[in-house]
Amino acid sequence: MNIAVAQSGGPTCAINASLAGVFEAGTKSQEIGKIYGSFNGIEGIINDRMTDLSDSLSSEENIGLLLRTPSAALGSCRRKLPEYEEDPEIYEAITECFKRHDIEMFFYIGGNDSMDTVAKLSRYYAEKSIDIKVVGVPKTIDNDLCGTDHCPGFGSAAKYVAATVQEITRDSNVYSAPSVTIVETMGRHAGWLTAAAGCMRLNGESAPHLIYLPEHVFCGEKFISDVKEMMKKHKAVICAVSEGVRTADGKFAAEDYQSCKTDAFGHAYLSGIGKYLENLVSEKIGCKVRSIELNVMQRCSSHFASLTDIEEAQAIGSAAVEAALRGETGVMMGFKRISDTPYKYEIVSVPASEAANSERFFPNEWITPEGNDITNDALEYLMPLIQGELPPVMKNGMPQHFQF
Amino acid sequence: MNIAVAQSGGPTCAINASLAGVFEAGTKSQEIGKIYGSFNGIEGIINDRMTDLSDSLSSEENIGLLLRTPSAALGSCRRKLPEYEEDPEIYEAITECFKRHDIEMFFYIGGNDSMDTVAKLSRYYAEKSIDIKVVGVPKTIDNDLCGTDHCPGFGSAAKYVAATVQEITRDSNVYSAPSVTIVETMGRHAGWLTAAAGCMRLNGESAPHLIYLPEHVFCGEKFISDVKEMMKKHKAVICAVSEGVRTADGKFAAEDYQSCKTDAFGHAYLSGIGKYLENLVSEKIGCKVRSIELNVMQRCSSHFASLTDIEEAQAIGSAAVEAALRGETGVMMGFKRISDTPYKYEIVSVPASEAANSERFFPNEWITPEGNDITNDALEYLMPLIQGELPPVMKNGMPQHFQF
Repeated sequence: MNIAVAQSGGPTCAINASLAGVFEAGTKSQEIGKIYGSFNGIEGIINDRMTDLSDSLSSEENIGLLLRTPSAALGSCRRKLPEYEEDPEIYEAITECFKRHDIEMFFYIGGNDSMDTVAKLSRYYAEKSIDIKVVGVPKTIDNDLCGTDHCPGFGSAAKYVAATVQEITRDSNVYSAPSVTIVETMGRHAGWLTAAAGCMRLNGESAPHLIYLPEHVFCGEKFISDVKEMMKKHKAVICAVSEGVRTADGKFAAEDYQSCKTDAFGHAYLSGIGKYLENLVSEKIGCKVRSIELNVMQRCSSHFASLTDIEEAQAIGSAAVEAALRGETGVMMGFKRISDTPYKYEIVSVPASEAANSERFFPNEWITPEGNDITNDALEYLMPLIQGELPPVMKNGMPQHFQF
Repeated sequence: MNIAVAQSGGPTCAINASLAGVFEAGTKSQEIGKIYGSFNGIEGIINDRMTDLSDSLSSEENIGLLLRTPSAALGSCRRKLPEYEEDPEIYEAITECFKRHDIEMFFYIGGNDSMDTVAKLSRYYAEKSIDIKVVGVPKTIDNDLCGTDHCPGFGSAAKYVAATVQEITRDSNVYSAPSVTIVETMGRHAGWLTAAAGCMRLNGESAPHLIYLPEHVFCGEKFISDVKEMMKKHKAVICAVSEGVRTADGKFAAEDYQSCKTDAFGHAYLSGIGKYLENLVSEKIGCKVRSIELNVMQRCSSHFASLTDIEEAQAIGSAAVEAALRGETGVMMGFKRISDTPYKYEIVSVPASEAANSERFFPNEWITPEGNDITNDALEYLMPLIQGELPPVMKNGMPQHFQF
């Protein structure tokens, strides 16, 4: 019996660690022969673009580099599987590829769209009585998958965001004039990553002084009055704002602002919430203000990954193989937290359909009543996930990466 | 005899290491009593806002944290000293503060404006026959100070830029569709930091595929044809562009684009070159494109500083004290490179007036004739500066910083 693994959705620092975990558990098992890696997610299965992972991952050195390489080494895709009735040919193409290569287990590392694929494919195999197991491995910096306490990739992104906002805070404090700094973080719907900026408080920092998540209604006037209030206490006010904050009417807060602007080519100009709030502060307060977008660095800064995150991502990849060997299919592996201090968890499996097409939001009870900060309970949840480092393997002063 | 030290200009990852170097050499000397740190550059001298550094820096632990803390721990300022004739009172206020505290040596860590202050103050003391030595310690991520091979702060910024562009390259390569990624780096006039993105080639990477510096005339049409050409060879084209690239008429390349836009409040909207080129690619090529601004992270990411840079910054701070003890004044300390491989340099002193108010540009012979890349000679210059790491001191999963 052979197995296949693929990576899907937006890249993270930990998705390659899960690939390593699948490979390692597969190598250990007597029942498993070849371990195929599919290029560009499910597309590689459909088009039969695969690699025998033992060709490149058999050395410990390469596994070590893979753990330290951001983004999806096998490539990714954004393809969502249609319902079987809509396009049976895709299902057949996938199954033919599996049969051609004697693949009886397929592991899909990804977010909720990928779990939708796991749910659909496994349902199809159940209905057709085809013995191919399909198991999902969670991955997303957004931390918004249902059925798991947290998602591989999130811890590293959280650590980067927290450390970077701390460094930006140092940078913002050098001049004697009052200033406002707005840091825009990823998260269209869920505020987990923005909340992670608060981790710098674990070491007694007062910043970030204001934190705005998509889970709480955003109001520009309230924001300005919050900032004015904080300026009484702090010379350099630091705000962490999720790209996805919305006003009471459900629209993204920067939407009106964006829609009234076009660029030199007449295109709608999509600036983010940070730039919007920078202009708002400039207009309403008139002090020195700047906005900073953490952009893709949030998800690809492997040089400062969380060791906990990388190790968990690796472990949950291996656990997926073990679950399939036990006969499980149509499931996503997840973390069940047992305690915060000491940090303890177990790896469980949940129906993939539970994670597919749903989102897990930042709990309202972890947002302060004013909607501009997070609580200590949130910090207790976040703290274990950012522990430890995995220093890069350096050569010529630069981190080394693994590439197929 | 006491001495004083101050930090000025834009923050870097290494400016605190130079502060540590001044403190350490000052502590070692039998001739020196107290070592004062002035808050917010020369402003702290004018307003007599100083701290006795031995109160906070006497422990090895705190020196260790100071070396790992980005930005100017004593605060900074942007104040340029007027000519003596224009405002003698400022000169007198500075001198009174020095005399009040028995300060006979003043060390100013900063860029060319700070070296201008060093030159003016030392000339004033020479003319008035006042025995106060004034010595400059270079600092700038822009690496554009004359009189030194390179500037403390640049190596760490260069290492961050190179490693981050490498991570962004991994991130950009995951999808099968062709794409263009534009990374905007700091440098209004000099292209050193943008060139540093090329360091990833030291390990055999092909990216960044295009590099544009302010030292070469920029042309939007040529840029588009360069990108089209690179798209034939690479699925994901990565471009590093300096914020300061200018067109043949001497204007910033994004200037026209910026000036025809106003935001919702009617303000001119200052987007950078990255966003401009993103829109240009979208309009002229129509492929997936994104722009990323490395923003202040370039200068404050101490968690990934270059050990060479930090050690050199510390050494040149100490060398400044030794130079003043030898009787030197009105000078800036600088590095004179003896060889690239093995990397050897010596610390020299040059007239501060040489560094003041002038800029050292990226050599034209290190730019390829087409103006869209750098040469191997440039890489040989850059490579020694990014060597080594100084891992943060961690607590609760977060780097610890020093704060006064």
